[in-house]
Amino acid sequence: MDENRIELTPVGTVEIDESQGQYRLKIEEVYRPALRGLDSCTHAIILWWADQLDNPGGRDGDLVVDLPYAPGVQTGVFANRSQARPNPIAITTAYLLNVDEETGTIDLAWIDAFDGTPVLDIKPYLPMSDLVRDAEYPGWLEGFPASLEDAAAFFADPEIAAKFS
Amino acid sequence: MDENRIELTPVGTVEIDESQGQYRLKIEEVYRPALRGLDSCTHAIILWWADQLDNPGGRDGDLVVDLPYAPGVQTGVFANRSQARPNPIAITTAYLLNVDEETGTIDLAWIDAFDGTPVLDIKPYLPMSDLVRDAEYPGWLEGFPASLEDAAAFFADPEIAAKFS
Repeated sequence: MDENRIELTPVGTVEIDESQGQYRLKIEEVYRPALRGLDSCTHAIILWWADQLDNPGGRDGDLVVDLPYAPGVQTGVFANRSQARPNPIAITTAYLLNVDEETGTIDLAWIDAFDGTPVLDIKPYLPMSDLVRDAEYPGWLEGFPASLEDAAAFFADPEIAAKFS
Repeated sequence: MDENRIELTPVGTVEIDESQGQYRLKIEEVYRPALRGLDSCTHAIILWWADQLDNPGGRDGDLVVDLPYAPGVQTGVFANRSQARPNPIAITTAYLLNVDEETGTIDLAWIDAFDGTPVLDIKPYLPMSDLVRDAEYPGWLEGFPASLEDAAAFFADPEIAAKFS
């Protein structure tokens, strides 16, 4: 038993139905009051538990991995967004389509999680904390999109999408 | 015992010495290979465990709270960045001054954590995922800084800083 261990409890679940274009969070009833005011925000940062991986948890996995989008490049997992990492908490910034406190339903434009993924936290996206105007990519990502908005167009290109499938 | 419980293990600790202007992360030896390549990034998102609060954990705390920076406004904790939340994981986007894999030392320009705070994860800041050009503030934050860079100047104003102390 490691005395440093920290325990979390999921506050909801990701519900995805790609055929309907549905990317939804369903929040447990007890936590729904925490949603108050979120409908006034345009974007939120979703923290979720990446439990549906080939290498679940990544605790025993490699700390240095190949980058699928940068052939021949390896980096440590703290320098990439691989979900196989010591504490597999993923973060996704998402556009909020609708928030319903009563039913605990949050509809997102998109999230890169799986159906059934546990949701750990939701935070409003605040430009003063989260928008870094002058952030630069490391060399192996040069030419990648300059914003979330640009990424939508970039990954819609079939040739590019094929590289990431 | 809740079968849904998730366990985390800190990967390092925040070391702050305000008198020296030092905002440092110290990563445990076993996790240091995960830092490889991070020195090629300009900014990182630090996930940390907010264990040093008046209301530790926030698990039993209110889900709807007053906003210190918006007098008279209350929102749910999923619509603000209060550290008192069901799973008190905080995220801070920080400018990277220096990364040393060998000693596990990461020097940051600033982080809003306390000395001794457990570090859970480090992710590179990627504009395609994290920079939302068109994000808008909710009404109660209108006029707040438009980026992390602008925030530095904003909060350096003594009149404004006094409101947040």
